[in-house]
Amino acid sequence: MRIELVNTGSELLLGRVLNTHQQWICRQLADAGYEVTRQVAIADTGPAICEGTKEALSRSDLVIVTGGLGPTADDITRDKIAELLECELREDAGTVERIREFFARRKRPMPERTRIQAMIPETAEIITNHHGTAPGLLIDINPNRFGGGIPPACLIMLPGPPRELRPMFVEQVLPIIRDRFPLGAEFACRTLKSTGVGESLMEEWLLEPLRELEKRGLVVGFCARTGEVDVRLVASGPDSTGIVSEAVQIALSVAGEHIYGSEDEKIEEVVVRLLSERNETVALAESCTGGYIGHRITNVSGASAVFLASHVTYSNEAKQRMLGVSKDTLAAHGAVSEAVAKEMADGCRERSGANYAIAVTGIAGPTGGTEDKPVGTVFVALASKKGTTVFKRINSFDRETFKFVTAQQGLELLRKEIMNTG
Amino acid sequence: MRIELVNTGSELLLGRVLNTHQQWICRQLADAGYEVTRQVAIADTGPAICEGTKEALSRSDLVIVTGGLGPTADDITRDKIAELLECELREDAGTVERIREFFARRKRPMPERTRIQAMIPETAEIITNHHGTAPGLLIDINPNRFGGGIPPACLIMLPGPPRELRPMFVEQVLPIIRDRFPLGAEFACRTLKSTGVGESLMEEWLLEPLRELEKRGLVVGFCARTGEVDVRLVASGPDSTGIVSEAVQIALSVAGEHIYGSEDEKIEEVVVRLLSERNETVALAESCTGGYIGHRITNVSGASAVFLASHVTYSNEAKQRMLGVSKDTLAAHGAVSEAVAKEMADGCRERSGANYAIAVTGIAGPTGGTEDKPVGTVFVALASKKGTTVFKRINSFDRETFKFVTAQQGLELLRKEIMNTG
Repeated sequence: MRIELVNTGSELLLGRVLNTHQQWICRQLADAGYEVTRQVAIADTGPAICEGTKEALSRSDLVIVTGGLGPTADDITRDKIAELLECELREDAGTVERIREFFARRKRPMPERTRIQAMIPETAEIITNHHGTAPGLLIDINPNRFGGGIPPACLIMLPGPPRELRPMFVEQVLPIIRDRFPLGAEFACRTLKSTGVGESLMEEWLLEPLRELEKRGLVVGFCARTGEVDVRLVASGPDSTGIVSEAVQIALSVAGEHIYGSEDEKIEEVVVRLLSERNETVALAESCTGGYIGHRITNVSGASAVFLASHVTYSNEAKQRMLGVSKDTLAAHGAVSEAVAKEMADGCRERSGANYAIAVTGIAGPTGGTEDKPVGTVFVALASKKGTTVFKRINSFDRETFKFVTAQQGLELLRKEIMNTG
Repeated sequence: MRIELVNTGSELLLGRVLNTHQQWICRQLADAGYEVTRQVAIADTGPAICEGTKEALSRSDLVIVTGGLGPTADDITRDKIAELLECELREDAGTVERIREFFARRKRPMPERTRIQAMIPETAEIITNHHGTAPGLLIDINPNRFGGGIPPACLIMLPGPPRELRPMFVEQVLPIIRDRFPLGAEFACRTLKSTGVGESLMEEWLLEPLRELEKRGLVVGFCARTGEVDVRLVASGPDSTGIVSEAVQIALSVAGEHIYGSEDEKIEEVVVRLLSERNETVALAESCTGGYIGHRITNVSGASAVFLASHVTYSNEAKQRMLGVSKDTLAAHGAVSEAVAKEMADGCRERSGANYAIAVTGIAGPTGGTEDKPVGTVFVALASKKGTTVFKRINSFDRETFKFVTAQQGLELLRKEIMNTG
């Protein structure tokens, strides 16, 4: 089965925006057992839309087009595709009604212009948009019915805004795809998320124990990003669910210590969940991460129940004033040292009254490194009722990657401590 | 001129990674006067690479292919394109030498496998990679020389890692493109970055004053992201530089108060630069942003000269302990209030000794809103030697967008204060 994703929008080709649809839609489909064959971005001009869509339809079973269904003058996808398929547009009464209701609920007048979104190609089916005004559309391309010499295919058009597209895709489009293109066999997919282990070591650990299951149809994939390795376990066939869940068990028994979650989970979500379940709290003492660990924790809804404070002590003076780090320790060991990391964590836990305190101090670079302490040097500390541990790492990356990896190490240290405390 | 960007990598089509090359390369080209006609992502399998590259070459003057030039088994772009063009691979002695030096400088042994990256299609020119081992390649497709019936075109292949690709693109590829595909006419492009004004208001302000220049060839584009509007001023023709710089002057005179920078500048970079120039410092008191403002400021290299600390006081207790907010004020007005924002900013400035203190307190949501203070309510305060100002905003967005917009408002408040203080 060939699936093609066509993203329309001149702003994509001018590089004004990042194409997040590519990753998101491809991921959704892959995890459901469908692989996108090709993704294409084209300008929102008539010729580009017609040419790009026609080419995609000519080589695919399913084409998903995003963008250009809104009410403004450059939203011409609907019109151009009707032109390409040589079919008329008709106003859909139900959609007019839904647009009216959309504005009524928001107590705003309905701009006349928005009504154009109810003009849909005849024979198109409507994919209702519960989060915006432009409906999605589905057209079965039938060569006997449509012009242009296009072979049979299924064409789905979706509005561009992610907060509209994403729920439509999950709630409506995926079930349609499953229904029209049933997988040849049962399909199962699980992704395990790990941190603190390199890709090659993870491979070394897992490949041998999983070999038997591979013979039964398991496919193991590794995807490494800085500071994280995803393990993707996929199988299709009559016993795919069983095979994948056996594989998950094996992976957890071999590398479970480093696996913090599954699917799209983030480590900060896991940490907030674990703390919430235990009615425990955390406070932070951040130097080189500059507030980034606090930012990640507070991205999780419900963080306020477990997160008390972060002391972002960038200057030495702030380390003394806010955390009680001693002037002598700073003078003797320097701000980036095991001793200072420990005093930061201890001061943070004591002053905040939190169950756990994470402290980080390091050299993000690109300047500030020395022979002894090169750029990337960082000390990560964790204080709990069991005492305080500090470890040193060399995270030799650019500034933002350094912060990401350091935050990851701090959060992972906390996660393991919570797990081990039980 | 038709330019096509082909990104290879099965991980793109499985949705495991975001395609940042699309935005970055398209943006670089657009700002140099070249527009990408189409961007395509394909799997890194032989058939996909051959088919995708051949189709792109058949309709383009310039094709840029990214990825698959490395040393691992799935890096097959080089081989497959040589196959497509029916040309032999030869080992390039200079590249072998550069790979050797690369490992020698890092005091690591050179893995034998990396030598394969020196195998290049005959007649390919080398684009030197100063940040990695895989060279970029340029091939002039000449139908008399190459097989497969491909029309004349220029094919450029670049390694996938952004930290290798980006400097190669700016330092080597752009000059090659300018040399081989000179623009028909002089081209000028400036992007002004604004915050705090909606797209339609910015349009209203600028379109009339710029109308005369539009008649002389100026093209004005607006690109709105949440919390920011870019104004793109482009002209081509004999006086394009003059027209664009006149347009910049007009835009600054009409909307200059809201324009914080140009091109790719971020507001935190501007703030760090302004403070550095003045030898001044800032400290933060963050509640609802959870450390995000500190994170953005410390993403800027050199921030340590101007940034002292952030007090991320998520809990009420932390607001009292770390900033001296009074218990009575909290009880009387609630944590999300003008009075608490003011005490946070004042306490922060006093305790840290910074010249400026930004404070934010609000309701990020999705829960925690009330009739009086709906989700999105935020108070942003700035304390300086001139006194303390507080304003209220309703930033009704999802949690992460809320944090971005709130941080933007705090940083912009500081930027204006510094500018007005002179």
